[in-house]
Amino acid sequence: MQRKIEDLTTEECVTLLGRESVGRLAFVDPEGPIAVPVNFGLAGDRVLFRLEHDSHLRAAIGPPVAFEVDHTDPDTGSGWSVLVRGTAEEVELDHLPELLRLMAGPPRPWAEGVHNVWVSITPRKVTGRRLTTRALGDVS
Amino acid sequence: MQRKIEDLTTEECVTLLGRESVGRLAFVDPEGPIAVPVNFGLAGDRVLFRLEHDSHLRAAIGPPVAFEVDHTDPDTGSGWSVLVRGTAEEVELDHLPELLRLMAGPPRPWAEGVHNVWVSITPRKVTGRRLTTRALGDVS
Repeated sequence: MQRKIEDLTTEECVTLLGRESVGRLAFVDPEGPIAVPVNFGLAGDRVLFRLEHDSHLRAAIGPPVAFEVDHTDPDTGSGWSVLVRGTAEEVELDHLPELLRLMAGPPRPWAEGVHNVWVSITPRKVTGRRLTTRALGDVS
Repeated sequence: MQRKIEDLTTEECVTLLGRESVGRLAFVDPEGPIAVPVNFGLAGDRVLFRLEHDSHLRAAIGPPVAFEVDHTDPDTGSGWSVLVRGTAEEVELDHLPELLRLMAGPPRPWAEGVHNVWVSITPRKVTGRRLTTRALGDVS
């Protein structure tokens, strides 16, 4: 078996992001870098998620952040990952309707509580890679 | 349906880590925080993975890092996540045998290339949460 890594185009990355509902928000808190799973939705190329008012994830608002989504098949060792780098900002509620119009389905927080802080990551860079497994002898 | 979040004990976290083979390494590079999926193995409570000599992930060696593993069921909204915070260091090859003895299965990089840099994350803190979904009326 041969493994092949290929870079994804931005368009492919955004398509893949649109199919998933859980990603990991990476940011820096006083203890260092941290990555936390978040239920998200996509509005165009913007990643949207919801937080409780007192969530520790609000530390992600302002400075640079990353948002990572991946899908891997442990049996074949194939999969893909997408990384969004940008900044997260709190969405003003006046702007929410226009974002929701862009979304197939808004993010639904799984945990209990009132998640009325909407956060949007505006991407500065979207990159991704796909790892495919081919049997030797396959036509490439 | 009611959702319940519970903190996991360190022991539960390590047990869950031992069942998975892919996690996300979160660290800071010159552009800010980043999270990248990595195939890993567990040696005791240490997270081990392998890199190519010229991997950009070598920037994770030295300063604080995090390693995140999760498992979610999009249908029920239940799942768990574990976060290891600590520092990553390159494993001296002399120490590799003792680490490998602790491991059920060593990490197998999926990508092509020679992955002869072994990296170990020594945990400073291991935390995790489980989100369960219960039908209303269940006895808690």
